[in-house]
Order: sequence, then C-alpha cells, then structure tokens
Amino acid sequence: MSKKLTIGMFGFGVVGQGLYDIIKTKNLNLEIKKFVIKNADKARSLPASLFTTDAEAILADPTINTVVELIDDAEAAYTITVRALKSGKNVVSANKKMIATHLAELAEIQQQYGTSLLYEGAVCGSIPIIRNLEEYYDNELLHAVSGIFNGSSNYILSKVFNEGQAYGDALKKAQELGFAETDPTLDVGGYDPKYKLAIVASHAYGTYIDPELILNLGIDKLGDQDIRFAKEKNLKIKLIPKAQEVNGEHVVLYVLPQFIGSDNMLFNVENENNGVLVKAAFADEQFFYGKGAGGHPTGSAVLSDIAALRYDYKYEYKKHLEASSLVYSNDYELKVYLRYTDDSLVEKLAFTEIIERYYAPDFKYIIGHINLQQLINHRSAIHQDGVFLAGIS
Amino acid sequence: MSKKLTIGMFGFGVVGQGLYDIIKTKNLNLEIKKFVIKNADKARSLPASLFTTDAEAILADPTINTVVELIDDAEAAYTITVRALKSGKNVVSANKKMIATHLAELAEIQQQYGTSLLYEGAVCGSIPIIRNLEEYYDNELLHAVSGIFNGSSNYILSKVFNEGQAYGDALKKAQELGFAETDPTLDVGGYDPKYKLAIVASHAYGTYIDPELILNLGIDKLGDQDIRFAKEKNLKIKLIPKAQEVNGEHVVLYVLPQFIGSDNMLFNVENENNGVLVKAAFADEQFFYGKGAGGHPTGSAVLSDIAALRYDYKYEYKKHLEASSLVYSNDYELKVYLRYTDDSLVEKLAFTEIIERYYAPDFKYIIGHINLQQLINHRSAIHQDGVFLAGIS
Repeated sequence: MSKKLTIGMFGFGVVGQGLYDIIKTKNLNLEIKKFVIKNADKARSLPASLFTTDAEAILADPTINTVVELIDDAEAAYTITVRALKSGKNVVSANKKMIATHLAELAEIQQQYGTSLLYEGAVCGSIPIIRNLEEYYDNELLHAVSGIFNGSSNYILSKVFNEGQAYGDALKKAQELGFAETDPTLDVGGYDPKYKLAIVASHAYGTYIDPELILNLGIDKLGDQDIRFAKEKNLKIKLIPKAQEVNGEHVVLYVLPQFIGSDNMLFNVENENNGVLVKAAFADEQFFYGKGAGGHPTGSAVLSDIAALRYDYKYEYKKHLEASSLVYSNDYELKVYLRYTDDSLVEKLAFTEIIERYYAPDFKYIIGHINLQQLINHRSAIHQDGVFLAGIS
Repeated sequence: MSKKLTIGMFGFGVVGQGLYDIIKTKNLNLEIKKFVIKNADKARSLPASLFTTDAEAILADPTINTVVELIDDAEAAYTITVRALKSGKNVVSANKKMIATHLAELAEIQQQYGTSLLYEGAVCGSIPIIRNLEEYYDNELLHAVSGIFNGSSNYILSKVFNEGQAYGDALKKAQELGFAETDPTLDVGGYDPKYKLAIVASHAYGTYIDPELILNLGIDKLGDQDIRFAKEKNLKIKLIPKAQEVNGEHVVLYVLPQFIGSDNMLFNVENENNGVLVKAAFADEQFFYGKGAGGHPTGSAVLSDIAALRYDYKYEYKKHLEASSLVYSNDYELKVYLRYTDDSLVEKLAFTEIIERYYAPDFKYIIGHINLQQLINHRSAIHQDGVFLAGIS
C-alpha cells in the first residue's frame, strides 16, 4: 500500500500553483502542510496560515516526510535539498541547474542516507524521459540522446522562423507567457538545455559531467541570412543538446543550434513543446514529445514524482553503479555552418576540412568539419555579433 | 540487489531470436535454460540440447522462475501463462490477443498467486507505453489515447500512399520483411490494433473490455478514390485505434481508418513505425514514437520486462483497483467519410447529420455524423467491396 506523504513545499510560483491545481482534483493520500515563500507580502490564493518565510518550518518539522522544492535560486535549493535528504526526508525538485551541478554528490547522499531525490520536472517538463532512461533503457546501449529541451528558445525559433517575427518581440512574448526564465540568456544562450543534457547523460551513460565543461552556443546571434539559408534548403534551425556515444567508450556532449530536415522527428516540434530522440542499439530510434514548459505540464511531472514517493521509488543510477559508464570526451569531429565577418576567425578555428565556402558583400559562410575541442577553446571568439555557428548534417 | 532469473522460453521465432541476440551482449544475471519449440526438425543456431518440444521441460521444472512466452497461438499461450503464474513463475508475454482476451482473469490470478505478468512487447513494439501508463500517468485523467499500433498496415499505407505501390505488392513486401502476421486480416482488418487498444485502455482507464465488443474496420477496402480524396486535401489515411474519455464517466473505443492532417503528430509516422498520442488533463498532449515491429525492437521491449522481473516488478492495475474506472460505452457520435455504391446503405446507416454529399459516375461519398453503435450494428454491410469508411475531423 502507499505511504501517506506530508509535504513541505518551497516556492509557490507558476509550477507550484499548477501543482496545487492538479492535487486539488485528486485523492492521493497526501497533505501539503506548509509553503515556504520569499515574499510574505504577496497576496496568495490559499489561507495565510499555510505560508511562512521561515525554512525551519519545513526542515525542522519531523512530521514532514517529503520536501518539494520549486525555487529559482540554485544555491538555496542545494542547501535545502542536502539538508532534507540528510534528515530522512525525500525530495522532489525541478531545479535543473542545482541538480546538474551537484548530481554526483546528491547521488552519494541518497545512497548514504537511504533517501530519494526525484527530478523529472527538471528535464523537458511533462516528458517522462528520466523515468524511461532509468526504468526502460537501463540495459540498452544508447547511441545518442538529443532533442529540444528548452521551450522558450524553441518558441522564439518558431515565431521567428515560421511567422517572421522579430527576435526581440518573440522573446518578450515568451516571457509574458511565463515559459522563459527571468534571465533570457539561460534559455537563448543554451545554458538551460545544457543543465538538462548533463542530467540526461548521467542517466543514459552513467557519467556525471560538470556542466561547466560542456560547450553551449545559443540562438542569440541568429541572423536573417541564417534563416534564409535554412529556408532555401527546406531546413529549420533548432537549438539541440546532444549526448553521443563514440566507439562504446566515450560520450560527447554539446548544445548547438542545428539545421535539421523534415526527416528528423524534431522538425515538427514547435513553440513551447519539447522532444527527446533516443537512438538505442536494439529498440532503434525512439521519440518522446510533450509540453516542455508551463505550470501544468511541469506540475504534472512533479506530481508523478510525488506519487512515486508514496511507493518509496528511487532512481537506481544503475549504469553508474555497474561501472558501465562511458568516459567524457571533447575529441569529436562536428560538421558545422559558420557565418562570419572577419576572415581571421576562420583561420583561428582551424577547420580540419572545408566543404563549402561562400562570399557575398553582406554574407560570408563556411561549411566544414571541426573538432569540438576547438570550438570550446575559441568559444568567446565565436559568440560575437556578426558570427553564428550551427551544426549541419 | 537483483534476483537471478532462470528462464524457460516458448518459441524461437523472429522475436525470440532478436531477444537472444540482445541478451548475448549483456551481463544480466540471467540464464535461458530451455526453449520449447513446435518443430523439432528445424535447424537452430544454438546447441540442440537447449531445445525440446515438451512444455513440461519448462512448466514442471522448479528451478525455472521465469517464463518468456513468444508463440503465435493465443490459446496455447493462455494455457502456458495461467499454469506458470499459478505455479509461482513470473511470465513475460508478447501475445496481444491472449492478453486482451483474458486480461481480467490474468490480473486476478497475478494478485491471487503473487506472481507477475508483463507484456510491454505485446503493444507497439519498442514503445514503453504500458510502463508509462502504469508508472507515470497513474494519477492523470487521460482524455484520449490513440495512435498507430500496427506496423504492417502502416507500412502498407506508406507504400500505397507515398510511393503509389499496389496494395497487394505492399502487403507481400511487409510479409517478406517479417512484420506482418501470417494471416494478413489480423493486421489490415484492424484486429491486431484492436487487441492492443483493449490492453492500453485497461491501463489508461481501469476498464477491462472484451475485444469482441470493439468496432474494428481496416484498410482492406481502401480504394484509389479515397487516396485521391485525401491527397487533394493534403491529408493522409492512417489506421488508428482510439480510446476516448467522455464526460469523465465513459470510455469509448474503436479502430478506424482516419484522415489526418499534418498538424497531427501521427502524420509523419511512416512504414513499420508506431506512435502513441496521449492527451492528459495536465501533462497535455504527449507523443511516443518508435519501431512497432521486428525482432530487435520487440525483443528490446521483452528484455525490459525480463530485466524488470529481476526487481520483482509488477503492474499495479491501479486505476482498476482504485475503482476510478470509466464505464465502457458505444454511445458516441463520430464524424465519418463513407464511400459507397448502393444508396440503400446510406439510408440504413441513419446518419444523424449529413454535412457533404458527392455524386459522380464512378465515385460517391458522404461525410456526416453517425453514432458508433450504428456502425457496430451494420458492420457487415459496411465491410464490403465498393465501400470504405474512415473517420474525418
């Protein structure tokens, strides 16, 4: 039988409210005893007695056995999560940055204290990708996991690409709709999908990778010429994080804009939707699609985690524990498109092979092969106005 | 820690061989002790001592704790499964007809004897839909579950529709490729997806439905006019089983060809691939895609079930047990396209509303609303040469 959960919740924003809406409609043998919030003066839709600004009201309450952490601040979330796990409380979190940054330690703490940390809501909103990697692909060699992991940059790309909207207008609209982070760089610069990629890779490949090491280039330098180039070739540009197995020994990770064609399942993932492509040795190509952002979809993922805690569900981190992990590497050749203005950048990047080169008064580009480590070394030279780099197949 | 599995396997066809190929590459703490096969004279790729035609070699062997059943014959599979479950052995099966037909009883037996029957491989090959319905959507109200559940009829539709192949040629090719049933009516007549639909519905809605009660019309009467009609409107025709929640009280099930547009995620599911669309109250629209047929994809699903048995995994049939089941109904209005030759059929069907009507010397069709029960009552009048019925939105 299921265990009664007494919940303390940190944060009552879009996801927290969405979650509360969902729980209301259920009979789940759980009770939300206390919300800890930052701003005591904000008007709330629930009785004031449920709210406090004092974290101890949850962390020091022995009757609370489950902490749901839905705050923005990654450092505060880390402190809360560690303290809760060490004091015998299970934790559900949707904070991708916190989890990606501290996953090795958090896995260790769970094992040591016998508590459980679940975080399906941190990756691709409503899509149950962590659960499927844990439960279903635990014995599969995965050749690659990639996808559209960031709803707001995908929303912007859809508006810019399909409707000809200006980049700034589309960004503002995404923020108004509540599925862009307060700091847009996290989304459009590819940081948010990078954190998610690191989490996905740990479950897919058993390897904990510091997100600081992973290359991320975003869509913030996307220009009209790039869009025209894509459209002439019936391609779209999507921001795609990818984990790729190499020779059964290494795993390579990167977040790059990519030109993709209509034969790719990600081609039709538009607006705030997310998609995850899994290439498995035996199951072959699998694709998961769903809403990647918004209070209700993410709330539904958090709720699935809460419900699973009623049955003491834990991630097993099996690939890591069975030492079937792959070794992280940046030695990998990519085929890229580079729009540039200054020829010295091309020289500096030292392409291993140049396939196409185009010059016009207002538009210069190159298509060629380049080593991922080169891109990492010259990231700041690439991430400049007048330059746009994207993977191309 | 995981439990050592000693496996007895019934059948060594495409899926059995695929499974064996996969297991070879793993270190899974399991042993296949015996294969029971029908034809003792066939040459096998493994030592002869592993094979027998005597079912008792598995069923009466107390050291075998896991039965994997991969035979075609639904009645024989049923006998094996019941006997194994009652004698304390867990069972993995991929026999959709057997499971769909006996699910209520099989769920009962599992509970009574504390054994586990898993059947992910029976539904949509490599796509983990049962596991996700059980584990992830167990607290969600699902508005609808639909999809492409039959690889071979979808392969035929792709070839006929996109490449202009003749129906008979495409069918033959599907059989050669090994992803069509020996009796093609099971696939193209919509019986195979109907069994899968009944299984899906039991996990999605908690209701065990006798597949005999569910309307299935297939693609075997598809004609050139129907294809032309679809193409003129930029639509495709797909064979789609659907379970639909109505007013939070009833669930309606049917298998029909459907005209769908490019805004439907199923539009790009081609060839032997399968796709499952889940519309959930909070998670919103979710889509799962993968290979629906073939030895390796189905083998990978069966392997996931076997691996889960090492941790004593069981389906919980939670929606059924919590009595949150919906009541099965056929009182539901559908919008359909009907190509016909004899006007009396239209009269007999008693459309509740006719929206479009077209006459030409060689092509007559009607588009209108009709009650599902009417279609069931007149199934044999509809399933005739010169008549083709499909849902249309």
